[in-house]
Amino acid sequence: MTQDLPDLPGLPLPLGGDTRLFLIIGDPIAQVGSPGLFNPAFRRRGAKAVLAPAHVAPADLKATMAGLRLIQNLGGIVVTVPHKIAVMDLLDEILPSARRIGAVNAIRRTADGRLVGDNFDGKGCIRALADDGRSVAGRRVLLTGAGGAGRAVAHAMADEKPALLRLYDVDQRRLEELAASVGQAHPGLAVETGAPDPDGFDVVVNCTPLGMRPSDPYPIEPSRIAPSSLVVDVILKPATSPLVEAAAARGCQVQRGMQMLEGQVEAICDFFAAGETR
Amino acid sequence: MTQDLPDLPGLPLPLGGDTRLFLIIGDPIAQVGSPGLFNPAFRRRGAKAVLAPAHVAPADLKATMAGLRLIQNLGGIVVTVPHKIAVMDLLDEILPSARRIGAVNAIRRTADGRLVGDNFDGKGCIRALADDGRSVAGRRVLLTGAGGAGRAVAHAMADEKPALLRLYDVDQRRLEELAASVGQAHPGLAVETGAPDPDGFDVVVNCTPLGMRPSDPYPIEPSRIAPSSLVVDVILKPATSPLVEAAAARGCQVQRGMQMLEGQVEAICDFFAAGETR
Repeated sequence: MTQDLPDLPGLPLPLGGDTRLFLIIGDPIAQVGSPGLFNPAFRRRGAKAVLAPAHVAPADLKATMAGLRLIQNLGGIVVTVPHKIAVMDLLDEILPSARRIGAVNAIRRTADGRLVGDNFDGKGCIRALADDGRSVAGRRVLLTGAGGAGRAVAHAMADEKPALLRLYDVDQRRLEELAASVGQAHPGLAVETGAPDPDGFDVVVNCTPLGMRPSDPYPIEPSRIAPSSLVVDVILKPATSPLVEAAAARGCQVQRGMQMLEGQVEAICDFFAAGETR
Repeated sequence: MTQDLPDLPGLPLPLGGDTRLFLIIGDPIAQVGSPGLFNPAFRRRGAKAVLAPAHVAPADLKATMAGLRLIQNLGGIVVTVPHKIAVMDLLDEILPSARRIGAVNAIRRTADGRLVGDNFDGKGCIRALADDGRSVAGRRVLLTGAGGAGRAVAHAMADEKPALLRLYDVDQRRLEELAASVGQAHPGLAVETGAPDPDGFDVVVNCTPLGMRPSDPYPIEPSRIAPSSLVVDVILKPATSPLVEAAAARGCQVQRGMQMLEGQVEAICDFFAAGETR
């Protein structure tokens, strides 16, 4: 069946009574791209599964989760804004990455009905790099932005044992908090806070929202990035951020937000598959 | 987009964040054919919607329904065995057909979050006849089987104003109950109970399970059915029941269980669409 289907963006394998159900919960929900990414990924993997959107308001999260967890063919839930933190209280188990980051973005329902949460915001970035044969191991990494995405990517990069991880954020308090948290989770890792000057760094990562609006300044000055560097940007819209555009023009290797998202989809599909009844 | 898609059984339009969610709830669920029927129907109608299975045990029905009703893009729920009666206590409104039959098999979620239940087991039969340009109005109808399907089809046929509706069941008590209920709901209609002898009837309807097993006797003796008659059978497996096969061989018009099911899908899609936010 898989082979006979043409390339159909947004479509899983044909649905039947034995299809496993996956949902993405958020508020609002209409803008999310996950159904368009997960369903083709399920189809490519030959998984009889579908991911559909579920619009759930914050006030309804607890009762909805209580109901959803009883659905025996529910395979898992992708979690988006604003539920990534609140949902943590409603799970049976939270894996270490998610605990460190303080947010869950994917939940697996095990065969015995337990809900296990993890976070793939950072792992997706590493997965996308690996899929392109790239690594941050032993390299000097500058990362700017200590919000949700920054926390996730910083911890995931730290897992890869870079030679140095410099963090920057305009908010000094959350910057120091992140540096302390990464340092604590990775003893022996060289972590520092400092200016977002890319001079001397091999890998430059933007986890701020700068670049979404045409009037935004660069999060990192591109003219000071070495052409041999790898530039990673989490920004999804525009698909090519001003930073990525400028870096590519200088000859840098680049990774866009969409690649990170695709890496996340693959990593989450693996996580979901691990929960399947065998 | 619709036009470019080849015929893909079991598939809706590509999924996105703005897809409306529909579920079929039952226990067990793996055997249900509804996802394979509703999703192509949604696609044909250009509806951005998907119907997925949800395996819900009887003990979990109340909590699951309480959670599902909070999902703001939930369009509706198809209900199958064993929840058709129990779910009635969990709805805000039950439409007259379902109340008469005493069972709900489709629930619409209105824009303001109310759950409205109806029953299409019988309406689907009438819809399928109508789609083929057939009608039972003014005709003499013999219907055998006063179980769930029989009750639904008897009431739906009675709505069409036949000249006579004769009912038969081996269980005398439930036969009399059905005759009384149909008579009460349709004052002036000629309703009788009597032998399942098709002689003198224009329309012959089997709502018993007889014909599913190879060893079953005919529910109605085919040799006594006039070749000018219309023979309707609710049996889905085998796709052509022994009664339908024998009737077709005599030159009768026939309607199989699958046609009734397809008529139901169309009728339920109309019902779901009536609940859409405009």
